[in-house]
Amino acid sequence: MTVPQTLDTDYIRLADAVRSADADAYVHIGDGTDDLLRYLTRVDTEDNLAAFVLTADGATVCLRPRYRPEAERKFPGDSILETDAERGIVEAVSDIIETDGVVRIPHTTSVGIARDLESLTSVDVVSEPDTIWCEKSDAEQRIAAHMADGVQRGIARAETVLAEAVVAADEVRWEGDALTTERLRREVKKELVSLGLRDMGNVVIGAGESCAELHFTGDAPIRPDETVLIDLGPRGPFGYFGDISRTFVPGEIRDWEQEAFEVVREALDSAFDVLSAGAGVGADELYLSMAEVIESYGYETGLHESRDDAVGLYHGTGHGIGVRIHEKPFQSRDADAELRAGNVITIEPGLYDPDRGGVRLEDVIVVEEDGYQNLMEYPYGLTPVEREIGEAPDGY
Amino acid sequence: MTVPQTLDTDYIRLADAVRSADADAYVHIGDGTDDLLRYLTRVDTEDNLAAFVLTADGATVCLRPRYRPEAERKFPGDSILETDAERGIVEAVSDIIETDGVVRIPHTTSVGIARDLESLTSVDVVSEPDTIWCEKSDAEQRIAAHMADGVQRGIARAETVLAEAVVAADEVRWEGDALTTERLRREVKKELVSLGLRDMGNVVIGAGESCAELHFTGDAPIRPDETVLIDLGPRGPFGYFGDISRTFVPGEIRDWEQEAFEVVREALDSAFDVLSAGAGVGADELYLSMAEVIESYGYETGLHESRDDAVGLYHGTGHGIGVRIHEKPFQSRDADAELRAGNVITIEPGLYDPDRGGVRLEDVIVVEEDGYQNLMEYPYGLTPVEREIGEAPDGY
Repeated sequence: MTVPQTLDTDYIRLADAVRSADADAYVHIGDGTDDLLRYLTRVDTEDNLAAFVLTADGATVCLRPRYRPEAERKFPGDSILETDAERGIVEAVSDIIETDGVVRIPHTTSVGIARDLESLTSVDVVSEPDTIWCEKSDAEQRIAAHMADGVQRGIARAETVLAEAVVAADEVRWEGDALTTERLRREVKKELVSLGLRDMGNVVIGAGESCAELHFTGDAPIRPDETVLIDLGPRGPFGYFGDISRTFVPGEIRDWEQEAFEVVREALDSAFDVLSAGAGVGADELYLSMAEVIESYGYETGLHESRDDAVGLYHGTGHGIGVRIHEKPFQSRDADAELRAGNVITIEPGLYDPDRGGVRLEDVIVVEEDGYQNLMEYPYGLTPVEREIGEAPDGY
Repeated sequence: MTVPQTLDTDYIRLADAVRSADADAYVHIGDGTDDLLRYLTRVDTEDNLAAFVLTADGATVCLRPRYRPEAERKFPGDSILETDAERGIVEAVSDIIETDGVVRIPHTTSVGIARDLESLTSVDVVSEPDTIWCEKSDAEQRIAAHMADGVQRGIARAETVLAEAVVAADEVRWEGDALTTERLRREVKKELVSLGLRDMGNVVIGAGESCAELHFTGDAPIRPDETVLIDLGPRGPFGYFGDISRTFVPGEIRDWEQEAFEVVREALDSAFDVLSAGAGVGADELYLSMAEVIESYGYETGLHESRDDAVGLYHGTGHGIGVRIHEKPFQSRDADAELRAGNVITIEPGLYDPDRGGVRLEDVIVVEEDGYQNLMEYPYGLTPVEREIGEAPDGY
């Protein structure tokens, strides 16, 4: 398995959407935090604005001169246009579109930029065609597998630290000091960055009660016999994300933690059963396969997310993943999407008690025509074990 | 010096701006990538939308339930409102503003959200009052000093690796393998994340020709006797950025590299001379103090940024820094801002030759009433030296 060195972007569906709307161009303006823009251009312009323009003449990226060499290496479209000190991004875009034409822009465009474009063209605000996002090409699936490998290495680092830690009467110590969520998080981040993966601020590590916050990124002591919930979502090659969750308990495993683990593990198996039918499974069906297991043990389910008033599962059970960490299809009771071959999605049932802790287990799978492929092969056990991480293979 | 554990936000100027515009509320909707929103709320909601609402009744943050505990710890305003599965962000915001009122929103608001707000209120699109950004409080200056310490530790790690490296006839080797910009970058990132600082995708390391790209984040071999340009801009406590640049040459220092270094070093001193007057200095004056030194050696200056057609300085010489990596005041020939006491700004002259390499030196200073304070004390030399980094003090 190797990561592709260049990556095509399929502009055909977008071109179709522009044509069928009787528009002359699609203009997407944003900065390096704009996932879809990066997908269209393959270039990250940090906090600087850049534009992608699709017309009948082809695809153009417009950016500051400092990013031209990067665009020459990565942009899969036809031409590169530079802004300069006198000519901002909208002015530069105006050079390649008809001033009396209809220009489609996405909903995410800022009103300031939309106004500037309005003074230049007839702007038509649209959503991006969803089809760009959901079914991944072979090359994108190779990147997803690469990211699955990377995040498993991150979990292995966390699990190893927890296994090495000394569980005392009232604290967990590692390398001579009390272990906290932030200390553990930094060890995981060191592993991720050594693989060239980027922390996007979502290296979630909760301990005990803070597991029920779902996305805890603060500092809290790791205490004996309580859950440590780890959920990693770093960004890798071409901006594609990985995602994984595992839960460990340093010390003795008590009844609640054991039951929570078994319930979540059963929910995961239930999801895999449903997924074995492959493409055509409903995203609601997938959610229900997990929620019903949780409910069968007397716990609540829902999407209210509040840690205060429920013991149960109160988030969705998974989502598509690509250049966005969360994308369609989303799994919920009311979801109306069907899984399609090539969808790369997370499966992440959880069970939380705001007074005790929380368990979440998460894998990433690829939907196939007649089944699915699980990109993870990481064990699910609660008791931490020292893992041999090994040298990262070529491609990192 | 310790980093504050909580941080106030001054809403007074914003409230004044709302009042003097005869508006009823200010509504800022964005996600965790929106620097100003994070400044207003002190909460990072990752890829989820959140809102900040300022009315005569006070300041409210509106976010998904999972971020409520984080908001309870950090939001300096008056109240916290949760969205839920049925009620999105705009609907939640509508609960606290008058539906027949005038609501000011920033230019950065997406057109999709602006349209939703329009159907609810009379929306008035504005820029944020700049005054929020530029003069830093004592607490913010303490964070700036903390970030200056952090980025110097990052540079120390890079310099140490370069000093340890073995310079052979045609390659630079470190720990048994050829040293590349990406290998060196990962070592720096490991240091940064071990300090709890977050890489924002701008750990710039260029080698030889790629130094002239200004923000090179790709992989290239580090070659003997060529410049290695390192520019770090990570994010730290409360989302505040640090920034530093140094340039080293592994191997023999040749004439061009020596001259480029001396010219840039002289430009930096010239800037410090101008800064010694303190508040009131023009941002253009500061730029010119550096540009004129570059020009006096026969090199070009300008803002065209293009690596192809110039040997010289072709970027601005510095910018304000805070919760945004680049903010006012910007230093250029045409800048009309005056420095004010409390401005935290970078000073970063550079000199580039697309066929040879580039030198940039960058410190961060605080403008004072009658002078300035340089937050950096890192040596400028071209020849890498092994540095003792030492344990990070409390506060990291």
